[in-house]
Amino acid sequence: MRVDVPLAKSYLLLNHGPVTLVSSRCGARSNVMAASWAMPLDFDPPKVAVVIDRSTLTRELVGGSREFALNIPPRALADATLAVGSVSGRGTDKWAATQLTTMPATRIAAPLVAECIAWLECRLLDEQDVECRHDLFVAEVVAASADDRVFSAGRWNFADAGLRTIHYVAGGQFFCTGETVLSQVQVTG
Amino acid sequence: MRVDVPLAKSYLLLNHGPVTLVSSRCGARSNVMAASWAMPLDFDPPKVAVVIDRSTLTRELVGGSREFALNIPPRALADATLAVGSVSGRGTDKWAATQLTTMPATRIAAPLVAECIAWLECRLLDEQDVECRHDLFVAEVVAASADDRVFSAGRWNFADAGLRTIHYVAGGQFFCTGETVLSQVQVTG
Repeated sequence: MRVDVPLAKSYLLLNHGPVTLVSSRCGARSNVMAASWAMPLDFDPPKVAVVIDRSTLTRELVGGSREFALNIPPRALADATLAVGSVSGRGTDKWAATQLTTMPATRIAAPLVAECIAWLECRLLDEQDVECRHDLFVAEVVAASADDRVFSAGRWNFADAGLRTIHYVAGGQFFCTGETVLSQVQVTG
Repeated sequence: MRVDVPLAKSYLLLNHGPVTLVSSRCGARSNVMAASWAMPLDFDPPKVAVVIDRSTLTRELVGGSREFALNIPPRALADATLAVGSVSGRGTDKWAATQLTTMPATRIAAPLVAECIAWLECRLLDEQDVECRHDLFVAEVVAASADDRVFSAGRWNFADAGLRTIHYVAGGQFFCTGETVLSQVQVTG
Protein backbone atom coordinates (compact mmCIF):
# COMPACT_ATOMS: atom_id res chain seq x y z
CA MET A 1 0.00 0.00 0.00
CA ARG A 2 1.26 3.46 -0.88
CA VAL A 3 1.70 5.58 2.23
CA ASP A 4 2.93 9.12 2.75
CA VAL A 5 6.54 9.62 3.84
CA PRO A 6 7.14 12.72 6.00
CA LEU A 7 9.09 15.28 3.97
CA ALA A 8 11.96 15.38 6.47
CA LYS A 9 12.41 11.62 6.00
CA SER A 10 12.13 11.65 2.23
CA TYR A 11 15.92 11.80 1.69
CA LEU A 12 16.04 8.21 3.00
CA LEU A 13 14.34 7.02 -0.17
CA LEU A 14 17.31 8.18 -2.24
CA ASN A 15 20.24 8.23 0.16
CA HIS A 16 21.63 4.79 -0.72
CA GLY A 17 21.95 5.69 -4.39
CA PRO A 18 19.33 3.61 -6.22
CA VAL A 19 18.53 4.16 -9.87
CA THR A 20 15.45 6.32 -10.46
CA LEU A 21 12.80 6.81 -13.10
CA VAL A 22 12.03 10.44 -13.89
CA SER A 23 8.40 10.97 -14.85
CA SER A 24 7.19 14.25 -16.30
CA ARG A 25 4.26 15.93 -17.97
CA CYS A 26 3.77 19.19 -19.83
CA GLY A 27 0.32 19.82 -21.20
CA ALA A 28 -0.94 16.62 -22.79
CA ARG A 29 2.50 15.02 -23.18
CA SER A 30 4.11 12.85 -20.55
CA ASN A 31 7.21 10.68 -20.45
CA VAL A 32 9.41 8.49 -18.29
CA MET A 33 13.19 8.03 -18.44
CA ALA A 34 15.84 6.40 -16.26
CA ALA A 35 18.33 8.47 -14.24
CA SER A 36 21.16 7.11 -12.13
CA TRP A 37 22.52 10.56 -11.50
CA ALA A 38 20.11 11.71 -8.80
CA MET A 39 20.86 12.42 -5.16
CA PRO A 40 19.51 14.23 -2.11
CA LEU A 41 20.74 17.78 -1.62
CA ASP A 42 19.22 18.78 1.70
CA PHE A 43 17.11 17.38 4.53
CA ASP A 44 14.41 19.89 5.46
CA PRO A 45 13.03 21.29 3.31
CA PRO A 46 14.20 18.33 1.26
CA LYS A 47 15.91 19.03 -2.01
CA VAL A 48 17.33 16.82 -4.74
CA ALA A 49 19.73 17.20 -7.65
CA VAL A 50 19.27 15.23 -10.88
CA VAL A 51 20.99 15.24 -14.26
CA ILE A 52 18.62 15.42 -17.25
CA ASP A 53 20.40 15.50 -20.58
CA ARG A 54 19.47 18.35 -22.93
CA SER A 55 18.70 15.94 -25.78
CA THR A 56 15.83 14.23 -23.95
CA LEU A 57 12.09 14.73 -24.21
CA THR A 58 12.06 14.72 -20.41
CA ARG A 59 14.23 17.83 -20.46
CA GLU A 60 11.64 19.60 -22.62
CA LEU A 61 8.73 18.53 -20.42
CA VAL A 62 10.50 19.38 -17.15
CA GLY A 63 11.64 22.69 -18.60
CA GLY A 64 8.08 23.53 -19.55
CA SER A 65 6.33 22.36 -16.37
CA ARG A 66 9.15 22.94 -13.83
CA GLU A 67 8.05 19.68 -12.15
CA PHE A 68 8.99 16.01 -12.18
CA ALA A 69 8.80 12.91 -10.02
CA LEU A 70 11.61 10.57 -9.04
CA ASN A 71 10.23 7.02 -8.90
CA ILE A 72 12.30 4.23 -7.33
CA PRO A 73 11.97 0.93 -9.22
CA PRO A 74 12.26 -2.51 -7.57
CA ARG A 75 14.41 -5.28 -9.00
CA ALA A 76 11.45 -6.62 -10.94
CA LEU A 77 11.57 -3.47 -13.07
CA ALA A 78 15.22 -3.80 -14.12
CA ASP A 79 14.30 -4.59 -17.72
CA ALA A 80 11.79 -1.74 -17.88
CA THR A 81 14.32 0.64 -16.32
CA LEU A 82 16.89 -0.22 -18.94
CA ALA A 83 14.26 0.08 -21.66
CA VAL A 84 13.07 3.58 -20.72
CA GLY A 85 16.70 4.60 -20.34
CA SER A 86 17.61 3.34 -23.82
CA VAL A 87 15.05 4.92 -26.13
CA SER A 88 13.78 8.48 -26.48
CA GLY A 89 10.22 9.51 -25.78
CA ARG A 90 10.39 11.59 -28.95
CA GLY A 91 9.99 8.51 -31.13
CA THR A 92 8.30 6.09 -28.75
CA ASP A 93 5.38 6.29 -26.33
CA LYS A 94 7.28 4.64 -23.52
CA TRP A 95 4.16 4.10 -21.43
CA ALA A 96 2.65 2.05 -24.27
CA ALA A 97 5.93 0.27 -25.07
CA THR A 98 6.64 -1.02 -21.57
CA GLN A 99 4.64 -2.54 -18.75
CA LEU A 100 4.88 0.73 -16.82
CA THR A 101 1.63 2.48 -15.97
CA THR A 102 0.82 5.83 -14.41
CA MET A 103 -0.92 6.87 -11.25
CA PRO A 104 -1.69 10.41 -10.09
CA ALA A 105 0.74 12.34 -7.92
CA THR A 106 -0.56 14.35 -4.99
CA ARG A 107 1.17 17.73 -5.42
CA ILE A 108 2.36 17.86 -9.03
CA ALA A 109 0.77 17.29 -12.44
CA ALA A 110 3.40 14.77 -13.58
CA PRO A 111 2.25 11.15 -13.23
CA LEU A 112 3.94 8.63 -10.95
CA VAL A 113 5.05 5.17 -12.12
CA ALA A 114 2.58 2.83 -10.44
CA GLU A 115 4.89 -0.21 -10.41
CA CYS A 116 7.61 1.58 -8.44
CA ILE A 117 8.08 1.32 -4.67
CA ALA A 118 8.86 4.92 -3.68
CA TRP A 119 8.06 8.33 -5.10
CA LEU A 120 9.44 11.84 -4.67
CA GLU A 121 7.35 14.67 -6.17
CA CYS A 122 9.61 17.58 -7.06
CA ARG A 123 9.36 21.20 -8.17
CA LEU A 124 12.36 22.87 -9.76
CA LEU A 125 14.23 25.61 -8.00
CA ASP A 126 15.52 28.42 -10.16
CA GLU A 127 19.11 27.40 -10.92
CA GLN A 128 19.14 27.92 -14.65
CA ASP A 129 22.91 28.50 -14.88
CA VAL A 130 23.74 24.92 -13.85
CA GLU A 131 20.79 23.63 -15.85
CA CYS A 132 22.27 25.19 -18.97
CA ARG A 133 25.92 24.46 -18.29
CA HIS A 134 25.73 21.00 -16.72
CA ASP A 135 22.21 19.60 -17.36
CA LEU A 136 21.91 19.64 -13.56
CA PHE A 137 18.52 20.34 -12.00
CA VAL A 138 17.95 21.36 -8.40
CA ALA A 139 14.44 20.77 -7.03
CA GLU A 140 12.47 20.81 -3.82
CA VAL A 141 10.67 17.65 -2.78
CA VAL A 142 7.05 18.68 -2.18
CA ALA A 143 5.57 15.24 -1.45
CA ALA A 144 6.94 11.75 -0.87
CA SER A 145 5.41 8.31 -0.53
CA ALA A 146 6.43 4.68 -0.51
CA ASP A 147 5.10 1.13 -0.68
CA ASP A 148 4.78 0.14 2.95
CA ARG A 149 5.91 -3.41 2.17
CA VAL A 150 9.43 -2.02 1.72
CA PHE A 151 9.53 1.33 3.52
CA SER A 152 7.74 2.17 6.74
CA ALA A 153 8.49 4.08 9.95
CA GLY A 154 11.46 5.68 8.21
CA ARG A 155 13.14 2.37 7.37
CA TRP A 156 13.73 0.30 4.26
CA ASN A 157 12.83 -3.37 4.70
CA PHE A 158 14.15 -5.52 1.88
CA ALA A 159 13.02 -8.90 3.22
CA ASP A 160 11.34 -9.57 -0.15
CA ALA A 161 14.27 -9.90 -2.59
CA GLY A 162 12.05 -9.10 -5.57
CA LEU A 163 11.24 -5.69 -4.08
CA ARG A 164 14.85 -4.62 -3.47
CA THR A 165 16.04 -1.42 -5.05
CA ILE A 166 18.68 -1.56 -7.80
CA HIS A 167 21.79 0.45 -8.67
CA TYR A 168 22.81 0.93 -12.30
CA VAL A 169 26.36 0.39 -13.54
CA ALA A 170 26.39 0.35 -17.38
CA GLY A 171 25.65 -1.92 -20.32
CA GLY A 172 22.51 -3.43 -18.81
CA GLN A 173 24.22 -4.29 -15.52
CA PHE A 174 22.64 -3.41 -12.21
CA PHE A 175 23.55 -4.30 -8.65
CA CYS A 176 20.78 -5.18 -6.22
CA THR A 177 20.79 -3.44 -2.88
CA GLY A 178 22.43 -6.01 -0.62
CA GLU A 179 22.54 -6.93 3.02
CA THR A 180 22.51 -4.46 5.90
CA VAL A 181 25.75 -3.48 7.64
CA LEU A 182 25.29 -1.77 11.01
CA SER A 183 28.12 0.36 12.38
CA GLN A 184 28.85 2.34 15.48
CA VAL A 185 30.98 5.44 15.74
CA GLN A 186 34.48 4.60 16.94
CA VAL A 187 36.65 7.67 17.19
CA THR A 188 39.40 7.87 19.77
CA GLY A 189 42.15 10.34 20.47
CA MET B 1 47.26 -3.10 -6.69
CA ARG B 2 46.20 0.44 -7.52
CA VAL B 3 45.82 0.92 -11.25
CA ASP B 4 44.78 3.89 -13.36
CA VAL B 5 41.20 4.04 -14.61
CA PRO B 6 40.74 5.82 -17.96
CA LEU B 7 38.97 9.14 -17.37
CA ALA B 8 36.10 8.24 -19.70
CA LYS B 9 35.42 5.16 -17.53
CA SER B 10 35.75 6.90 -14.19
CA TYR B 11 32.00 7.50 -13.83
CA LEU B 12 31.66 3.74 -13.34
CA LEU B 13 33.33 4.04 -9.96
CA LEU B 14 30.46 6.20 -8.71
CA ASN B 15 27.51 5.29 -10.90
CA HIS B 16 25.94 2.74 -8.55
CA GLY B 17 25.71 5.25 -5.71
CA PRO B 18 28.23 4.10 -3.09
CA VAL B 19 29.10 6.23 -0.10
CA THR B 20 32.31 8.23 -0.53
CA LEU B 21 35.03 9.73 1.63
CA VAL B 22 36.02 13.27 0.66
CA SER B 23 39.70 13.97 1.32
CA SER B 24 41.11 17.47 1.10
CA ARG B 25 44.17 19.55 1.84
CA CYS B 26 44.85 23.28 2.00
CA GLY B 27 48.37 24.27 2.95
CA ALA B 28 49.45 22.09 5.86
CA ARG B 29 45.93 21.06 6.89
CA SER B 30 44.15 18.01 5.54
CA ASN B 31 40.94 16.24 6.42
CA VAL B 32 38.59 13.44 5.49
CA MET B 33 34.79 13.29 5.78
CA ALA B 34 32.03 11.00 4.56
CA ALA B 35 29.64 12.04 1.79
CA SER B 36 26.70 10.03 0.52
CA TRP B 37 25.55 12.88 -1.66
CA ALA B 38 27.96 12.51 -4.55
CA MET B 39 27.20 11.51 -8.14
CA PRO B 40 28.60 11.62 -11.65
CA LEU B 41 27.57 14.60 -13.73
CA ASP B 42 29.11 13.88 -17.12
CA PHE B 43 31.09 11.20 -18.97
CA ASP B 44 33.92 12.83 -20.90
CA PRO B 45 35.40 15.00 -19.63
CA PRO B 46 34.10 13.38 -16.46
CA LYS B 47 32.48 15.61 -13.89
CA VAL B 48 30.97 14.99 -10.47
CA ALA B 49 28.63 16.81 -8.10
CA VAL B 50 29.02 16.54 -4.34
CA VAL B 51 27.36 18.21 -1.36
CA ILE B 52 29.77 19.61 1.24
CA ASP B 53 28.05 21.33 4.15
CA ARG B 54 29.17 24.86 4.93
CA SER B 55 29.85 24.01 8.57
CA THR B 56 32.59 21.49 7.79
CA LEU B 57 36.36 21.83 7.83
CA THR B 58 36.33 20.07 4.47
CA ARG B 59 34.36 22.98 3.03
CA GLU B 60 37.06 25.38 4.18
CA LEU B 61 39.88 23.24 2.76
CA VAL B 62 38.11 22.59 -0.56
CA GLY B 63 37.19 26.26 -0.82
CA GLY B 64 40.82 27.22 -0.32
CA SER B 65 42.43 24.62 -2.57
CA ARG B 66 39.62 24.13 -5.14
CA GLU B 67 40.50 20.42 -5.10
CA PHE B 68 39.35 17.23 -3.39
CA ALA B 69 39.33 13.48 -3.87
CA LEU B 70 36.37 11.11 -3.69
CA ASN B 71 37.55 7.84 -2.16
CA ILE B 72 35.29 4.75 -2.29
CA PRO B 73 35.47 2.69 0.91
CA PRO B 74 34.94 -1.09 1.03
CA ARG B 75 32.67 -2.78 3.54
CA ALA B 76 35.59 -3.25 5.93
CA LEU B 77 35.67 0.55 6.36
CA ALA B 78 32.03 0.95 7.38
CA ASP B 79 32.96 1.86 10.96
CA ALA B 80 35.62 4.31 9.82
CA THR B 81 33.21 5.84 7.29
CA LEU B 82 30.63 6.43 10.00
CA ALA B 83 33.32 7.81 12.30
CA VAL B 84 34.69 10.40 9.86
CA GLY B 85 31.12 11.35 9.01
CA SER B 86 30.19 11.88 12.65
CA VAL B 87 32.87 14.21 14.02
CA SER B 88 34.36 17.44 12.70
CA GLY B 89 37.97 17.82 11.64
CA ARG B 90 37.95 21.14 13.50
CA GLY B 91 38.20 19.40 16.86
CA THR B 92 39.73 16.06 15.89
CA ASP B 93 42.60 14.96 13.69
CA LYS B 94 40.57 12.30 11.94
CA TRP B 95 43.62 10.67 10.38
CA ALA B 96 45.05 10.10 13.85
CA ALA B 97 41.70 9.10 15.35
CA THR B 98 40.86 6.36 12.84
CA GLN B 99 42.72 3.59 11.06
CA LEU B 100 42.65 5.61 7.84
CA THR B 101 45.99 6.56 6.33
CA THR B 102 46.95 8.77 3.42
CA MET B 103 48.72 8.15 0.16
CA PRO B 104 49.67 10.69 -2.52
CA ALA B 105 47.32 11.54 -5.35
CA THR B 106 48.67 11.89 -8.87
CA ARG B 107 47.16 15.17 -10.07
CA ILE B 108 46.05 17.03 -6.93
CA ALA B 109 47.64 18.00 -3.63
CA ALA B 110 44.90 16.45 -1.50
CA PRO B 111 45.81 13.02 -0.13
CA LEU B 112 43.96 9.84 -0.99
CA VAL B 113 42.66 7.38 1.61
CA ALA B 114 44.98 4.39 1.24
CA GLU B 115 42.49 1.82 2.59
CA CYS B 116 39.83 2.65 -0.02
CA ILE B 117 39.30 0.71 -3.25
CA ALA B 118 38.72 3.48 -5.81
CA TRP B 119 39.75 7.11 -6.10
CA LEU B 120 38.55 10.11 -8.11
CA GLU B 121 40.83 13.17 -8.07
CA CYS B 122 38.76 16.29 -8.66
CA ARG B 123 39.22 19.99 -9.35
CA LEU B 124 36.35 22.39 -8.74
CA LEU B 125 34.62 24.10 -11.60
CA ASP B 126 33.53 27.66 -11.00
CA GLU B 127 29.91 27.30 -9.90
CA GLN B 128 29.96 29.49 -6.84
CA ASP B 129 26.24 30.32 -6.97
CA VAL B 130 25.18 26.74 -6.24
CA GLU B 131 28.08 26.34 -3.80
CA CYS B 132 26.74 29.26 -1.80
CA ARG B 133 23.06 28.53 -2.11
CA HIS B 134 23.00 24.72 -1.90
CA ASP B 135 26.45 23.56 -0.63
CA LEU B 136 26.68 21.84 -4.02
CA PHE B 137 30.09 21.55 -5.67
CA VAL B 138 30.67 20.75 -9.34
CA ALA B 139 34.11 19.39 -10.22
CA GLU B 140 36.03 17.84 -13.08
CA VAL B 141 37.64 14.44 -12.51
CA VAL B 142 41.30 14.86 -13.47
CA ALA B 143 42.57 11.40 -12.50
CA ALA B 144 40.99 8.10 -11.42
CA SER B 145 42.33 4.83 -10.12
CA ALA B 146 41.09 1.66 -8.48
CA ASP B 147 42.21 -1.48 -6.66
CA ASP B 148 42.42 -4.07 -9.42
CA ARG B 149 41.11 -6.77 -7.11
CA VAL B 150 37.68 -5.12 -7.39
CA PHE B 151 37.75 -2.99 -10.56
CA SER B 152 39.54 -3.82 -13.79
CA ALA B 153 38.84 -3.57 -17.52
CA GLY B 154 35.99 -1.18 -16.75
CA ARG B 155 34.14 -3.63 -14.50
CA TRP B 156 33.47 -4.01 -10.80
CA ASN B 157 34.15 -7.49 -9.46
CA PHE B 158 32.76 -8.04 -6.00
CA ALA B 159 33.69 -11.71 -5.60
CA ASP B 160 35.37 -10.86 -2.27
CA ALA B 161 32.47 -9.84 -0.03
CA GLY B 162 34.77 -7.88 2.27
CA LEU B 163 35.73 -5.59 -0.60
CA ARG B 164 32.20 -4.72 -1.68
CA THR B 165 31.20 -1.07 -1.77
CA ILE B 166 28.60 0.22 0.69
CA HIS B 167 25.64 2.57 0.51
CA TYR B 168 24.69 4.72 3.48
CA VAL B 169 21.15 5.05 4.78
CA ALA B 170 21.16 6.76 8.20
CA GLY B 171 21.81 6.07 11.87
CA GLY B 172 24.84 3.87 11.26
CA GLN B 173 23.03 1.68 8.73
CA PHE B 174 24.61 0.85 5.38
CA PHE B 175 23.61 -1.55 2.64
CA CYS B 176 26.30 -3.59 0.93
CA THR B 177 26.33 -3.60 -2.83
CA GLY B 178 24.50 -6.82 -3.67
CA GLU B 179 24.29 -9.30 -6.48
CA THR B 180 24.43 -8.44 -10.18
CA VAL B 181 21.23 -8.21 -12.23
CA LEU B 182 21.72 -8.26 -16.00
CA SER B 183 19.01 -6.85 -18.22
CA GLN B 184 18.36 -6.49 -21.91
CA VAL B 185 16.41 -3.78 -23.60
CA GLN B 186 12.88 -4.86 -24.32
CA VAL B 187 10.87 -2.14 -26.01
CA THR B 188 8.13 -2.99 -28.45
CA GLY B 189 5.55 -0.97 -30.31
